[in-house]
Amino acid sequence: MKEKIYYILSVSKKPGDTSWYFDIFIITLIILNVLAIVLESIEHVRLQYQTQFDIFEIFSVVIFTVEYILRVWTADLIPTYKKPLTGNLKFALTPLALIDLLAFLPFYLPFIGIDLRLLRVLRIFRIFRLFKIARYVEALSFINSVFKKKKEELAISLIFTAFLLLISSAFMYYVENEAQPENFSSIPGTMWWGIATLTTVGYGDIYPVTPLGQFLGGIIAIIGIGLFALPTGILASGFSDEISKRKQQGDYCATCGQTIKVKTDEY
Amino acid sequence: MKEKIYYILSVSKKPGDTSWYFDIFIITLIILNVLAIVLESIEHVRLQYQTQFDIFEIFSVVIFTVEYILRVWTADLIPTYKKPLTGNLKFALTPLALIDLLAFLPFYLPFIGIDLRLLRVLRIFRIFRLFKIARYVEALSFINSVFKKKKEELAISLIFTAFLLLISSAFMYYVENEAQPENFSSIPGTMWWGIATLTTVGYGDIYPVTPLGQFLGGIIAIIGIGLFALPTGILASGFSDEISKRKQQGDYCATCGQTIKVKTDEY
Amino acid sequence: MKEKIYYILSVSKKPGDTSWYFDIFIITLIILNVLAIVLESIEHVRLQYQTQFDIFEIFSVVIFTVEYILRVWTADLIPTYKKPLTGNLKFALTPLALIDLLAFLPFYLPFIGIDLRLLRVLRIFRIFRLFKIARYVEALSFINSVFKKKKEELAISLIFTAFLLLISSAFMYYVENEAQPENFSSIPGTMWWGIATLTTVGYGDIYPVTPLGQFLGGIIAIIGIGLFALPTGILASGFSDEISKRKQQGDYCATCGQTIKVKTDEY
Amino acid sequence: MKEKIYYILSVSKKPGDTSWYFDIFIITLIILNVLAIVLESIEHVRLQYQTQFDIFEIFSVVIFTVEYILRVWTADLIPTYKKPLTGNLKFALTPLALIDLLAFLPFYLPFIGIDLRLLRVLRIFRIFRLFKIARYVEALSFINSVFKKKKEELAISLIFTAFLLLISSAFMYYVENEAQPENFSSIPGTMWWGIATLTTVGYGDIYPVTPLGQFLGGIIAIIGIGLFALPTGILASGFSDEISKRKQQGDYCATCGQTIKVKTDEY
Repeated sequence: MKEKIYYILSVSKKPGDTSWYFDIFIITLIILNVLAIVLESIEHVRLQYQTQFDIFEIFSVVIFTVEYILRVWTADLIPTYKKPLTGNLKFALTPLALIDLLAFLPFYLPFIGIDLRLLRVLRIFRIFRLFKIARYVEALSFINSVFKKKKEELAISLIFTAFLLLISSAFMYYVENEAQPENFSSIPGTMWWGIATLTTVGYGDIYPVTPLGQFLGGIIAIIGIGLFALPTGILASGFSDEISKRKQQGDYCATCGQTIKVKTDEY
Repeated sequence: MKEKIYYILSVSKKPGDTSWYFDIFIITLIILNVLAIVLESIEHVRLQYQTQFDIFEIFSVVIFTVEYILRVWTADLIPTYKKPLTGNLKFALTPLALIDLLAFLPFYLPFIGIDLRLLRVLRIFRIFRLFKIARYVEALSFINSVFKKKKEELAISLIFTAFLLLISSAFMYYVENEAQPENFSSIPGTMWWGIATLTTVGYGDIYPVTPLGQFLGGIIAIIGIGLFALPTGILASGFSDEISKRKQQGDYCATCGQTIKVKTDEY
Repeated sequence: MKEKIYYILSVSKKPGDTSWYFDIFIITLIILNVLAIVLESIEHVRLQYQTQFDIFEIFSVVIFTVEYILRVWTADLIPTYKKPLTGNLKFALTPLALIDLLAFLPFYLPFIGIDLRLLRVLRIFRIFRLFKIARYVEALSFINSVFKKKKEELAISLIFTAFLLLISSAFMYYVENEAQPENFSSIPGTMWWGIATLTTVGYGDIYPVTPLGQFLGGIIAIIGIGLFALPTGILASGFSDEISKRKQQGDYCATCGQTIKVKTDEY
Repeated sequence: MKEKIYYILSVSKKPGDTSWYFDIFIITLIILNVLAIVLESIEHVRLQYQTQFDIFEIFSVVIFTVEYILRVWTADLIPTYKKPLTGNLKFALTPLALIDLLAFLPFYLPFIGIDLRLLRVLRIFRIFRLFKIARYVEALSFINSVFKKKKEELAISLIFTAFLLLISSAFMYYVENEAQPENFSSIPGTMWWGIATLTTVGYGDIYPVTPLGQFLGGIIAIIGIGLFALPTGILASGFSDEISKRKQQGDYCATCGQTIKVKTDEY
């Protein structure tokens, strides 16, 4: 029976069998959960359908809890985690298993006497339920491999970025602090200006007003946005490399048009 | 006579004959219609020239109606739609024919007793008259093929984009809602902030004010704009691929400098 | 003597001779003129040094006038314009000669009784003096060839851009006009929003406030910025093509580090 | 003993020896200094821990002073600077040595009777301590070689940028000055608008309001952002060239995952 459960839980390769219907069920449940989280955030919807949301929450948590327990219990049937207890524990520490756990754990915390104020914070973790879908969506493993392949380049450009942000903000703080002590109140506070400027978002809530500050800000903007755009370029080239690699291997074209694809190497 | 009409309606290959003059006439009428729509949107122009606009509208609708009826009637002369009635119907469902229909249909709705409030909404469809020009402008079929060639890449990057937008907005909603309940009122409402930030538009009507919100917003901006720029990169590479392909085929250089070109494969 | 003047006016090939010193003199005069225009725009500087600015203006105009007359007079010594009168006239209609003319002409207009209010407008043309430097700066002929090589691509992408801007603005006008009649007052007025959004500048002076408008604005931003970034990508690739072409030809490396280079094919 | 000190000061090649521990010590001290500068900028932290910050400042300055003196003293052991006195002086004028000097010099200025108001300005130089880390971080020498390789392209595109900014700002000043004399007060003042627009930052503190100004601003934005993005494209391609070059040479892969790497050619 354990093997049967393992088979049902694992991502199905052939449409139409029990495992495949189970996948569809879980995917639907995840999407409905995300929808519920989004709708609950709208106050008048929350107030009107509070009971329905609560019932659905309990239902979802029960399913996710059972699913998690069964996944950990059957994990020793996966070759990588075949050692009886150590294997199950090792599996429980994989990112996907941790996401599974975080997706329902906060629900149980009030029962073990957690402060209600902390609980408010823990409700954020409900959004992690969305990540559970990573098991079924090929496109999300895609970005993962792009990040892995380009990790050195991204690391180097992040060091630049951090360096540039620190230097820019420190100079701007010294120049503008006197004129606008409330906006450029400290170097960390000025970094908010630095990020808004160097990413070219430019909300306009904080900007230099002194001629020297505007001159410095202009120089920083012209030079800095080039360096801040490096990660964008790295990701774009990594993305197109990965696309052309998968197209050559032929395991990509087979799934054209069907982006939500059953993957065979995740549990 | 039917074949004569078909020939006149179809996009002409040789400048100077009747079909060519008809094309010029329709293109001019489309451009004048778009100009009229734009000018009518300026209140004092609309008030002053109301009668002229109305006369021009009736004139245009009559022409577009007759053109549409003749196009559908003669559609069975096109090899693809040669079956008498089914062919005409099939043609009537092509995107270009539907645009032709939408371009004049709202005009007739008051006569069949449509609510005037709904009519206001239907006036938006007048702008679809601009799309009628797609039949004559090569450049617009260009972007179409770029989108088709890159549809998988665009689909993958849109999934990322949607995912990232949802996650970012959900987190930001939890973090900022208490401090700014009117701006970060719900997750869908926070998505307006998310789009403005991740596209780097940054109107500045809504932005985080708490230190935690600004820290989170900074991280989201630095990481997110790279992923949001992926579609831009995909379109740019698809565009340059298509350009170089057409240049090699030689059917592009022939039209250099003459972008509004008569196309032979559209009706 | 005419040949001597021609030689002095033409861009010198060897540093140190009369023609070379004349080039340096004209370049210096142009830069000083631009500096004067910039400084004169600062009110308290203008009020304090009005006399000096006026004297420098008269001095510059005299030099530029004499230079222009001599250039047109000696133009028939250039092989391309060797026909006595027609050649001189043809030369006078080249972009560089027209810039030379526009650089000093507005100064003389009050003497022939031009309305002073129009004159204010004509003062803008003084900034064209900056373009006179194009004769001497290699880098500006560079961007010129990039634009010429990519003119088809740029034309296609400008058609998209105009199309997209018109459609986006028309829809947004219909959606937001009722809620913000002063901001989204007409389709041309809404285009100001369209440009600010699609270029991602996002000043924040005008943005949608209705949920439908924000939804539409979000869709437009996500799709549109990709298309609006096409010219950027085209220019970038054209720029790097031109760089590598010139590096191969070897006529570029010779001038490394010396960007302001004397060109031999301009007069 | 001089050679011993030289060996300890130079960047260590083998982890675990005295020179290596010294490097770790200096790197830690630099990071703590930057942290102190950042924290001191937050007013309530500065007021609470003033004494601790002062003690740490004195400690750091003493270390950095001794380190600097020893570095200059032992510089003649480096082959490039082996001439006794001239060599040491030549070394003292290298960028890294100057940064070392600037990092502690302002501390001593009050003792030689410098005006306290000037001192405020000199405190900015404390942030240069961050640059001391350049000696130890491979990633920062990386951007340096990218800038060197692409210096011609960057120079050309900076000339465009400056040209475009000047022309745009001059025209916009003439067009908008009458309507908004306080915002578009002068050409240099309008450049602040020009930079915010052409970099697409768009704070929204200053923007055209007249129809002509908005039309001109729209044209400038559409054309200009393409040219302003050139440096970004140049840096991105230089970055990827450098990455692939170092990967081929094999001296890069060896340090994968370990970005803060000891370099052998800096002192």
